[in-house]
Amino acid sequence: MDLFGLLQLDELSHGLANLSMFPFFDMAHYIVSILSLREQPGAFEVSRASPLACWFSSMLFCFGGAILSAIMLAEPVVAPLSNSTSVLLASITWYLVFYCPMDLVYSCAALLPLRLVLSGMKEVTRTWKVLGGVAQAHGKYKDSLLVMIAIGWAKGAGGGLISNFEQLVRGVWKPETNELLKMSYPTKITLIGAVLFALQQTHYLPLRTHHLMLIYTVFTVVNKSRMMLTGSSASPFAVIELAIYKTLFTGHSPYAALTGEVQKACLDHGATNGTTSTAGSKEIGGNGAAGKSTPVSPVKRQKGSLQAKEESEDADTANCKKIN
Amino acid sequence: MDLFGLLQLDELSHGLANLSMFPFFDMAHYIVSILSLREQPGAFEVSRASPLACWFSSMLFCFGGAILSAIMLAEPVVAPLSNSTSVLLASITWYLVFYCPMDLVYSCAALLPLRLVLSGMKEVTRTWKVLGGVAQAHGKYKDSLLVMIAIGWAKGAGGGLISNFEQLVRGVWKPETNELLKMSYPTKITLIGAVLFALQQTHYLPLRTHHLMLIYTVFTVVNKSRMMLTGSSASPFAVIELAIYKTLFTGHSPYAALTGEVQKACLDHGATNGTTSTAGSKEIGGNGAAGKSTPVSPVKRQKGSLQAKEESEDADTANCKKIN
Amino acid sequence: MDLFGLLQLDELSHGLANLSMFPFFDMAHYIVSILSLREQPGAFEVSRASPLACWFSSMLFCFGGAILSAIMLAEPVVAPLSNSTSVLLASITWYLVFYCPMDLVYSCAALLPLRLVLSGMKEVTRTWKVLGGVAQAHGKYKDSLLVMIAIGWAKGAGGGLISNFEQLVRGVWKPETNELLKMSYPTKITLIGAVLFALQQTHYLPLRTHHLMLIYTVFTVVNKSRMMLTGSSASPFAVIELAIYKTLFTGHSPYAALTGEVQKACLDHGATNGTTSTAGSKEIGGNGAAGKSTPVSPVKRQKGSLQAKEESEDADTANCKKIN
Repeated sequence: MDLFGLLQLDELSHGLANLSMFPFFDMAHYIVSILSLREQPGAFEVSRASPLACWFSSMLFCFGGAILSAIMLAEPVVAPLSNSTSVLLASITWYLVFYCPMDLVYSCAALLPLRLVLSGMKEVTRTWKVLGGVAQAHGKYKDSLLVMIAIGWAKGAGGGLISNFEQLVRGVWKPETNELLKMSYPTKITLIGAVLFALQQTHYLPLRTHHLMLIYTVFTVVNKSRMMLTGSSASPFAVIELAIYKTLFTGHSPYAALTGEVQKACLDHGATNGTTSTAGSKEIGGNGAAGKSTPVSPVKRQKGSLQAKEESEDADTANCKKIN
Repeated sequence: MDLFGLLQLDELSHGLANLSMFPFFDMAHYIVSILSLREQPGAFEVSRASPLACWFSSMLFCFGGAILSAIMLAEPVVAPLSNSTSVLLASITWYLVFYCPMDLVYSCAALLPLRLVLSGMKEVTRTWKVLGGVAQAHGKYKDSLLVMIAIGWAKGAGGGLISNFEQLVRGVWKPETNELLKMSYPTKITLIGAVLFALQQTHYLPLRTHHLMLIYTVFTVVNKSRMMLTGSSASPFAVIELAIYKTLFTGHSPYAALTGEVQKACLDHGATNGTTSTAGSKEIGGNGAAGKSTPVSPVKRQKGSLQAKEESEDADTANCKKIN
Repeated sequence: MDLFGLLQLDELSHGLANLSMFPFFDMAHYIVSILSLREQPGAFEVSRASPLACWFSSMLFCFGGAILSAIMLAEPVVAPLSNSTSVLLASITWYLVFYCPMDLVYSCAALLPLRLVLSGMKEVTRTWKVLGGVAQAHGKYKDSLLVMIAIGWAKGAGGGLISNFEQLVRGVWKPETNELLKMSYPTKITLIGAVLFALQQTHYLPLRTHHLMLIYTVFTVVNKSRMMLTGSSASPFAVIELAIYKTLFTGHSPYAALTGEVQKACLDHGATNGTTSTAGSKEIGGNGAAGKSTPVSPVKRQKGSLQAKEESEDADTANCKKIN
């Protein structure tokens, strides 16, 4: 508080907290969401084959958070649809992005400078959504931190969390992955925001609401801009994540639980290093032949992503050698 | 109104509006629904392997609309089950259709004349369901046309809209298609009905409720009978649909957005025309090998169906030539 | 009642009915549930790749019944999460089972004597859950036996009934099977319990609540222990099930509905007997090639399981010969 006073940020944070999301920030959220839908593989074709499925998919992208939190709180799922102005705005956006003559809207919105601004504005709406969800849950379940986090997370990252079912609307089904198995950056930053706002609302975090809003908004906007400008998808939390993971979730002992697993991984690793092209083609063939009728464990892909996330392949290999 | 008075249809429409659906029309709905379940591939085998799954599937066919609208309005999903008489009636129908000695009931009900009468009666229940859904939503969300349409549609065509999950009960999973991607005739006519009744309830459509009920019921019954007698599955709205589609959803310019797509479609087209058998076998092989692990875009099948719907292959080909 | 008085079991049943499930019995339920999650193929790998997905899956195993019944009664799905003590207890259990140093907890809990005790205690919680669900539904839907059975069943066997979606969290999707198509023993015993308690609550079954609790608890505990000690998975109801199935669900006439089916089954049977290895490899190949893009009827697997359940292959074969 003192620091905020000193830096004269108190007024700024008050101004931000009183900002109205409607219509400009909401509009930016709709545009960026529908752009990202359009860039999904197969989405453009669906928009030509079935405009209705495409519209429904777009609404799930735009109002996914509201829908998911409504389901979790046993409130009517159609409630987000009852706000005619928002739905109309989102529908116009959907129409212009997918069907505008000469594809003008998509071409303009996809230009980097404009997209940067729109994405920044979308990140601002995230703060409002997460805070809205946390406050709503706080009103219903006074002292349940977990419910507050869950609802805040659902409201802020709903579109991602229900992506399996959103894809199903477009006739795509990818059960081997979901946002819980492999979190994307927006889902992760929303979860962190939900935790922070839940702690703040229950006074475990000694900050005022509008100060936390300012801090969180600045962080998300700056980070998103950085990621878009550098084209990097590296999470700013990779180091912390890795530390937590190594401390809590490896079972502490390489000899007890993990030995078999790690050894197998080492063997796989060796085979991959030795005969990369063969292994690659085999994997494609294997995937193709197996289809989804056998319960394929998603761990191979996951392990790969985890290694990439950890950026510690050398450490792994060293580990393997120690065991062998 | 005047017209109705002149044609002495006012009394008829009043009589229709006061008609009770229970028990005869409801019964016809159950019979036709369970007949269509039984004619699904694999359903008869499921009825022998697991009567409980078959019963649950039948209830989803019979009460799908009530269940889907309950989910959307955050009302108890079990509420339709609490009406013991309806469930008993539907369960008896289910038992007789699937397990009757000598398969008498199925053989009789599947005879064209009886089935025609039953299907006509089922179409009558559609009017009541759509109107019920629209009125229920009107009571809760006064001025939201969209919610009224959604609930009316869900109530009238729920069984179709949740078909992906109904199939899952029977161990079948077809994510590449759903009623939004490729609407069947009943879903389409129910959507139109929901739109009409929603407009009527909000006084945008200057008609009395019982007059609209008469018009809509007569249209659905006559049209269903025509389709069953001629064996045609052509939608009576194909021309209007095509006009709307061409006007709104093609992007207006063949040179901007669609060029790549259309050219590709032309190339595909040419290849298909030239070497049909090869392409066919390749597609089967491709489908088989790829399984569902790759996010297969459903557009090929869709495009095919769309072309069939449009019945305008020549126009497309001409278009292709112009571009090339 | 008299019998209970004579056997001096009245006091025992009162004592049982006043037993508190928290914390020891609940704890046993969490441990056994999470052990069974850990023993699912691929679950251990998921616990390493994504602890969050693993935690969410564990919560679905522990609170699946509460979540499913909340969905069915349109109560907030997050309500089970709002009981912080239970969630904390379940989360600690989850952590210890999956990530304990030296894998001590899993190794201990998996020892037969301890597991036997824990499984017995888990069976005791089933009685409380089923009764809780039935009583809750009785309070809301006075005279609807079906809703009472449904909610009691959902509350007692929720984890199993939502297993398709629990698996989806871990990236596994097995649409060709579910608990309705092929019921496991716990699902079956819970259904029977739900029926009994629903009949008791509506006074169709002339027993006092605490007497029925004693009888049902003793039966489930004894039966579970027997199954664990003998390693048999034979259902104690197999004979009754078969009798009901043969009486009600075969259509009574081998000549009318089933002829084609049974003949085909006979042919399949003959082919399988003659060339087992070929058929086997063909099936694997077929499954592999077909993936899930064709609506594979689940009947072959089902029929197999049914035959095993019935233990009446000879009867079937005799039947076939008679028809041929």
